[in-house]
Amino acid sequence: MSHPVLDTFRSAIGAEHVLTEGDLSAWEQDWRQRMRGKALAVLRPGSTAEAAACVRACAAHGVAIVPQGGNTGLVVGSVPDASGRQVVLSTTRLNAVRGIDAANLTMTAEAGCVLQNVQQAARDAGLLFPLSLAAEGSCTIGGNLAANAGGTQVLRYGNARELCLGLEVVTPQGDIWNGLTGLRKDNTGYDLRNLYIGSEGTLGLITAATLKLYPLPAARLTAWAAVPSIAAAVDLLGLAQKFLGSSLTGFEAMCQFALQLVDRHYPQLRVPLWQGSPWCVLLENSDDESEAHARARFEALLEAALEAGCVSDAVVAESLAQAKNLWHIRESVPLAQAAEGLNIKHDISIPISRIPEFVQATDALLTQAIPGVRLVDFGHLGDGNLHYNVQAPEGADAAEFLRTQEERINEIVYGSVKAHGGSISAEHGVGSLKAHTLPHYKPAVALDLMRAIKGALDPQNIMNPGRVLA
Amino acid sequence: MSHPVLDTFRSAIGAEHVLTEGDLSAWEQDWRQRMRGKALAVLRPGSTAEAAACVRACAAHGVAIVPQGGNTGLVVGSVPDASGRQVVLSTTRLNAVRGIDAANLTMTAEAGCVLQNVQQAARDAGLLFPLSLAAEGSCTIGGNLAANAGGTQVLRYGNARELCLGLEVVTPQGDIWNGLTGLRKDNTGYDLRNLYIGSEGTLGLITAATLKLYPLPAARLTAWAAVPSIAAAVDLLGLAQKFLGSSLTGFEAMCQFALQLVDRHYPQLRVPLWQGSPWCVLLENSDDESEAHARARFEALLEAALEAGCVSDAVVAESLAQAKNLWHIRESVPLAQAAEGLNIKHDISIPISRIPEFVQATDALLTQAIPGVRLVDFGHLGDGNLHYNVQAPEGADAAEFLRTQEERINEIVYGSVKAHGGSISAEHGVGSLKAHTLPHYKPAVALDLMRAIKGALDPQNIMNPGRVLA
Repeated sequence: MSHPVLDTFRSAIGAEHVLTEGDLSAWEQDWRQRMRGKALAVLRPGSTAEAAACVRACAAHGVAIVPQGGNTGLVVGSVPDASGRQVVLSTTRLNAVRGIDAANLTMTAEAGCVLQNVQQAARDAGLLFPLSLAAEGSCTIGGNLAANAGGTQVLRYGNARELCLGLEVVTPQGDIWNGLTGLRKDNTGYDLRNLYIGSEGTLGLITAATLKLYPLPAARLTAWAAVPSIAAAVDLLGLAQKFLGSSLTGFEAMCQFALQLVDRHYPQLRVPLWQGSPWCVLLENSDDESEAHARARFEALLEAALEAGCVSDAVVAESLAQAKNLWHIRESVPLAQAAEGLNIKHDISIPISRIPEFVQATDALLTQAIPGVRLVDFGHLGDGNLHYNVQAPEGADAAEFLRTQEERINEIVYGSVKAHGGSISAEHGVGSLKAHTLPHYKPAVALDLMRAIKGALDPQNIMNPGRVLA
Repeated sequence: MSHPVLDTFRSAIGAEHVLTEGDLSAWEQDWRQRMRGKALAVLRPGSTAEAAACVRACAAHGVAIVPQGGNTGLVVGSVPDASGRQVVLSTTRLNAVRGIDAANLTMTAEAGCVLQNVQQAARDAGLLFPLSLAAEGSCTIGGNLAANAGGTQVLRYGNARELCLGLEVVTPQGDIWNGLTGLRKDNTGYDLRNLYIGSEGTLGLITAATLKLYPLPAARLTAWAAVPSIAAAVDLLGLAQKFLGSSLTGFEAMCQFALQLVDRHYPQLRVPLWQGSPWCVLLENSDDESEAHARARFEALLEAALEAGCVSDAVVAESLAQAKNLWHIRESVPLAQAAEGLNIKHDISIPISRIPEFVQATDALLTQAIPGVRLVDFGHLGDGNLHYNVQAPEGADAAEFLRTQEERINEIVYGSVKAHGGSISAEHGVGSLKAHTLPHYKPAVALDLMRAIKGALDPQNIMNPGRVLA
C-alpha cells in the first residue's frame, strides 16, 4: 500500500496500529454479513490525541473515515465501501474507564469500552449503568452513543441518549471538543451532545463520554403473562405503569408464532403459556426496597390485570434462574428465527396507543399480498418499538423469498408505519442500509435541515459519507 | 409606521394582530426590567401557518425576529433591542391543547400554552406533566422548551428537554417542520428536536410540542431537614437516592442566611429549624403506592440520616397545607432577597460531588474580596444547580454595590465555577445577558460548532440575533 497518507498514520499512531495487510474481514464486513468492503487501512489509535491526528491526516488528504466500535450494528453503518479508499477508524484501543464519581452518579469512559465492561465497572462501584442489549458482550459504548442504542431498559431509563451527560468528540477537522461534563443542567448554548449522539459517525468521532449511573435496585423480579390480544397487552402496560410507576423496567411482547419458533428450535427453554395465547408479555420490576415488596406489588398488578381481563394467565419467576430463563426466551426469538431460515427484519416504532390497529392492519396487508407469509412480531412494547419481522411461508425457499419479496414487503410495512405515525428505524439507526429509503418516509424539511448541518460541520464530507444521508 | 413589511404582516394575520402603537412595554421590556427595547411591531399570529407567513415576510425583508412566549425569562432573551427594527413574534395566541393520548402518555400542545394550563390539562386526564417552576402561571411551554427550563422536578423527570418527544418548528426560511412525533424511539437521523430545544429562538420558532406525561403519583410527601453542612446535604442526597430511588422528586438546599431573610421578611411562614443549622434541605417523595408507604419510607430514610450524622433534626409535613408551606418557604427565598434589596444572581451548576468544595472556596474568595458581603446560596442541589446569589453588605447602598461590584463578583464566581467543572448557566439560558460572557467560559471548539450550525440554519441571521451567540 503506497497511499501517501499511510506514512502519516504510521508516524502518528505507530506502524503496528495501521493495518493494511492480511485478513481484515473483522473490520471490513458487517455483523449480519450483508456487505463486505475494502479498507485503505484500519487505524487503531491509542488515545484521543492519536485519533485526532488520524482525522487531521484524513482531512488533509481528503480521505473518508468510517468510525467503528464493536462492529455489531445492524444497518451497515460501520464498514468501508468497496472502493478501497476509506479508512476504518477503530476505537477499540480507547478502552479506559477514566473515572467513576459515585456522589455525582457518573462514569467517564472511553468510546472503545465494551458495554459489558462499562456495566461491570458500575456494578463494582455498587451502582447501575442500565443500558443493556443483545450485543453487550462486544458492542462499545462509543458505538452505542453514535447509534443512540435502545435495548431492554429504555422504558425506565431511556435510550443511550438519556444516559449520557457529556461527550469528547474529534471534529471532522481533527479538533478535539472536550464536552465531558458531569452536569445534569447546562444551558449554555446548542445541544451539541445530542447532535453527535445518534449521528452515526457522520458529524465527528466520539472518543469518550460521561455516563449517568443509578443506585442498584434492591430487587429485580420478572413475570410472564399470557394476554388475549395485542390490545390487551397495551392495556396491561397502562395498568403496570399505574401500579409499578418507575419500578417497571421491562415490558416485552411476543406473538404466538415467535414463541412457537423458540419452542421448536430451543425446546429446552420450556416457553411457558404460549400455546393457549396469541401473545405473551415479559414484565420486569426493579424495586428500591426488597424482593418481598417487589413480589407483593407484582401480585397486586397481576390480580388487577386478571380481573380486568387483559391477562389470562401469569407466572412470576421464583428464582433468579427462572427470571434469567424468561429473559433468555425473549432473547432467543431472533436466534430461533434465524434457525427457521432467512427473514426480513424491521425495527419500527409506533405511538403505543396505535400499535393494535397497526398490527392488525399490517398483518392483513401482508397476508393478503403473500398467502402463507409468517409474521414474527415481538419487541419492546413499553417503548412502542416492535421488531416486526417477516418469515417466508412454510416450505418456501427463503433466499428466493428474500430476493423477490423484500422490497415489496418493506414498502408495505413502512407505508403502514408512516400511516400510523411511526418511525422506520426505532433503535437500529439508518446506516447505509436505510439511507436511500429514508427520504420516502421523513419530511423533506427535516432532511434539508440535516443536510445543512452535515454540510456545515463536515464540508469535505469525510466522516462516514453515504451513511444516514445518501 | 410605514415599513413596507407591515402591510404584509397585516394581510397575513389581520391588522388587529400587528401591534405598532400604544404601550407595548409588556412585550418590549424584560421581566426583571433590565432592558427596555423598541419593536418595529408585535406580531400575534393565530396559527402555525400564520406564524410561518410572518417569518417568510421577515426573511424577504431581512427583518429580525424576536420570539416571545410569556416573557418571563431571566437573561433578556425575548425582548427586542432598541433599534426599532426587530419584530416581536408573540406565540400567546397559539394556545390550544391539540390532544392528549392517554395510552401513549403524551399531550400535543401549542407553544403559547401557559405552563400551568398544560399541567392542568394533564391532571384533568388523570395524568402528570411534571415541569414546574416559579413562573408557571405566566410562562409558556414554547418558551420553556426554547430555554430548556429546569425547575423543581428535574431530579426525577429531567429538564424540559427530557419531557418533549417532538416539535413543530418554523424555520428561519418560513418552512414548517412537523416533527410532532409521539415516539419514544426514533433513530432516523440527526436529533433536530434537541437542537431546537435550548436554542432560545435563534434557530427557528417552536410552534407546538408533543410532551411526555406520567401517571399521577398516589401520594406526595414533603420533609424538611436541618443539616450540619453542605457536605452533609450531599451525603443526605446520596442516602435519599438509595432509600427512595426514583420516588425522590425534590431535593432543595437553602443556606442559613437565605432562610434568615425569609424569616425576616415573611415571618408568618414560620421557617422551621433554621436557627440552629447552617443549611436546611427540603425533600419531596412522590410515591406510587400510598401516603402510608411514603411516610414509612421517609421515616426510614431520616432515621438512617440522623444515625449517619448528615441530618441533625427533621420534620415531615403532616398535611398538604404544611407541605405547601414548606415549598412556599423555598420559593420565597428570591422574594425575600428582593425585599432585602438589589442583588446579583447566579444560576450555576457543578458536579454534585464538588459542590461542597465549590461553596467553601467561592465563599472564601468573595468574603476576602468584599468584607461583609452576604451570600444567599440555595437551589436544586439534587441537580447540582445552585442559585449562588450575592447581596450587598448590611447597610451598604445596593445600587452602588451592583454598579461597582457586579462585574468583579461575576468574574470571581464564574472563574470558580469553571475551576470546579461547572456551568455558568444551569437552567436560565444565555439570552443577551450572558452572550458576551460565554466565550470566556465555553471551549472555543464548542462555540465554533455552534456558529457553524447557526450560519447553516439561519444564514441571514434573522432569528433572535445577538442572543446566545454575540
